[in-house]
Amino acid sequence: MSDNDAQDSNMAQPVAGGGLLDRRLFLKNGLALSAGAALAGHALESRAGEPSWMKTPGEPFTNYGRPSLHEKEAIRWISANSGAPGNGISWTPLHKLEGIITPNGLHFERHHNGVPQIDPNQHRLLIHGLVKNSLSFGIDDLLRYPMVSRLCFVECGGNSNAGWHEEPIQTPVGYFHGLASCSEWTGVPLAVILEEAGLQPDARWLIAEGADAAAMNISIPVEKALDDAILALYQNGERLRPENGYPLRLILPGWEAVLNVKWLRRLQAANQPVMARNETAKYTELQPSGKARQFTFIIEAKSIITFPSPGESLRGPGLYQISGLAWSGRGRIRRVDVSADGGRSWAEAALQEPVLPQCFTRFRLPWRWDGSPLVLKSRAVDETGYVQPERQALVAERGRHGYFHYNAIVSWAVAADGTVSHVYA
Amino acid sequence: MSDNDAQDSNMAQPVAGGGLLDRRLFLKNGLALSAGAALAGHALESRAGEPSWMKTPGEPFTNYGRPSLHEKEAIRWISANSGAPGNGISWTPLHKLEGIITPNGLHFERHHNGVPQIDPNQHRLLIHGLVKNSLSFGIDDLLRYPMVSRLCFVECGGNSNAGWHEEPIQTPVGYFHGLASCSEWTGVPLAVILEEAGLQPDARWLIAEGADAAAMNISIPVEKALDDAILALYQNGERLRPENGYPLRLILPGWEAVLNVKWLRRLQAANQPVMARNETAKYTELQPSGKARQFTFIIEAKSIITFPSPGESLRGPGLYQISGLAWSGRGRIRRVDVSADGGRSWAEAALQEPVLPQCFTRFRLPWRWDGSPLVLKSRAVDETGYVQPERQALVAERGRHGYFHYNAIVSWAVAADGTVSHVYA
Repeated sequence: MSDNDAQDSNMAQPVAGGGLLDRRLFLKNGLALSAGAALAGHALESRAGEPSWMKTPGEPFTNYGRPSLHEKEAIRWISANSGAPGNGISWTPLHKLEGIITPNGLHFERHHNGVPQIDPNQHRLLIHGLVKNSLSFGIDDLLRYPMVSRLCFVECGGNSNAGWHEEPIQTPVGYFHGLASCSEWTGVPLAVILEEAGLQPDARWLIAEGADAAAMNISIPVEKALDDAILALYQNGERLRPENGYPLRLILPGWEAVLNVKWLRRLQAANQPVMARNETAKYTELQPSGKARQFTFIIEAKSIITFPSPGESLRGPGLYQISGLAWSGRGRIRRVDVSADGGRSWAEAALQEPVLPQCFTRFRLPWRWDGSPLVLKSRAVDETGYVQPERQALVAERGRHGYFHYNAIVSWAVAADGTVSHVYA
Repeated sequence: MSDNDAQDSNMAQPVAGGGLLDRRLFLKNGLALSAGAALAGHALESRAGEPSWMKTPGEPFTNYGRPSLHEKEAIRWISANSGAPGNGISWTPLHKLEGIITPNGLHFERHHNGVPQIDPNQHRLLIHGLVKNSLSFGIDDLLRYPMVSRLCFVECGGNSNAGWHEEPIQTPVGYFHGLASCSEWTGVPLAVILEEAGLQPDARWLIAEGADAAAMNISIPVEKALDDAILALYQNGERLRPENGYPLRLILPGWEAVLNVKWLRRLQAANQPVMARNETAKYTELQPSGKARQFTFIIEAKSIITFPSPGESLRGPGLYQISGLAWSGRGRIRRVDVSADGGRSWAEAALQEPVLPQCFTRFRLPWRWDGSPLVLKSRAVDETGYVQPERQALVAERGRHGYFHYNAIVSWAVAADGTVSHVYA
């Protein structure tokens, strides 16, 4: 046995309970693991003849593509008000996706009064209030400005709020945590436009307003606006989709989605917040003390295991790769730990490069399941040292009347028959 | 004048001919530049009333989104054989895009006999030939294997071949250089599967075959297959689109697209290449000596300015941001230089993070155009030190009978009226 073999052999030993293996194993030692896993391979003789689609010419070219007709389940699940079909949410099916990019057609939605169909030639952005120069920009004007690109997540402050329920919700992970998506956003740094307008010294807030029929508005601290806010025109390379704010939206990396105002038409500089519905009645959190938290902008570190996850069934004991997503509004993910014994022991997952600030980070870890029932968990740590809390700790801190900013560790129970369910453990 | 002001003032001075400015300027000094640029701002009183789309409820939610109806020009332009509509190419409209991601609906296509509509439950991948164990995998089998994600470009070896023409082609940049796209690909490292099959010592090539009606096949050196090749199942988060190889394609980062076989159904290990049409009659390059280059797999460093570019008109003298893409099959882009005086002087562009190997890299540079006619160029340098050649040097080296692997510096002439055209300069 060579040194390498010895090392490989050591690496195939569990590093934590429940069969978790060294995160470097799959990349450095595919052979031993795959062979040991008895993954479903079929002998040459089982090869069928040429399939029907090799015997006739295929479909012609298309100007703009669509997913395969066989992927009809990879859609946004809609939870809308039946009396007002443009009021509600739609979820990114995170359990159907891999990597870190959310395709534009599957980015989650939250609309108050539907998706406006805006003519970009008529749309204008107005900058006014406590500024030296009130300014109005057409989209063509903005397209001439300097741009930056930024890969980052957008997450609704109300995402994962079923975690506050007394009983664990049983649903695919996308319909529990899928009010979070991740794209490459490109647009004009808001700081450039604000410097042109010239903020007055007492301007502390920007009241942002959207051009939808709800005229959704909300208050943004000028510090964030001057830091890394983007007037986004492009998403994943192409111009924004209507449901994501075409022709113009705000992107505030790492801050809850409601502040990332879509169909942006107005930024009014002011010396105090506007106290709009979405920063008073909504997006505030009642504490055990009876007081409410307000202006809790930043998304704290969070992680979820997307495979395996509820709705999926493991095909029997053997080798698997656990896969999931982690993100933090405070910067980069530093580490993700995974447990396969309900939190008694933890193993460090591999983080897929690139690991970017305020961006989804894909983590993966090899796992040999022996067929016993067990509980999987993941725990994110961000670059500030913040550790994603256990549910018990989060509930103890915030009480049971919370609704927003649920970011506790999530637990999936794997049963002996391979089915996966959501548990509080 | 403070030190900062003095520094800002220095930074606003041209760093090269034709009005090129310091790449750090827009990010550090938005105010001075924007104010100096007289960008089109309009006074508050010009604000119109609320637009029609704020007075009626918007459109309802959708399970899978589509681009705005106002972006009908951001499509793939199709160049197909009229007698065989599934034989041809379609182009990514690079002149309509920003950032580095190509949305899946706009990834370029090259099909020999159309797009097969494959049932993933019937599709199999066969590994055979000079292997110890012939193996066959269903898609569900592969989905259980360990995965990796990789942001990388795919470029046709024939991209930009109009550059060999005697006269410069006049077309939007996407229809000249748009057989290149960039996505996040996720799938199983091919090395893992090959280790399970066990390559025999004399296996030097893998003959890859697609499940389209052309049964497109080609030979791949085992070194690349064992290095970083991916059996891709996901593109930009979701499962592959049919035109990009659903349910399974090869991704060979940095190697010409024809090797990234779509609808992959077979990998036969062999001791020599199969000498298929696409590695003999096609994808070879006739040299001035009368001999042809063969197996020129790697995409050499290349760059193009996407704004401004032919088909666009500048709206008069003033400040602009030059924007473009650079990439190299040999690794990361180290630097992109831009010239606004036909190559007499050059300024270093800002590279947008993240800068990843074998991936599109967005470069940008501020530019103050004084209204004179001039010629813009960009020149990529990759991490190996390779410098993108001038056209004259490329033609001198390869002659005029080339067709593939055209990567010369591209020149855009800006006329006094702001129109942009392609020139050899």
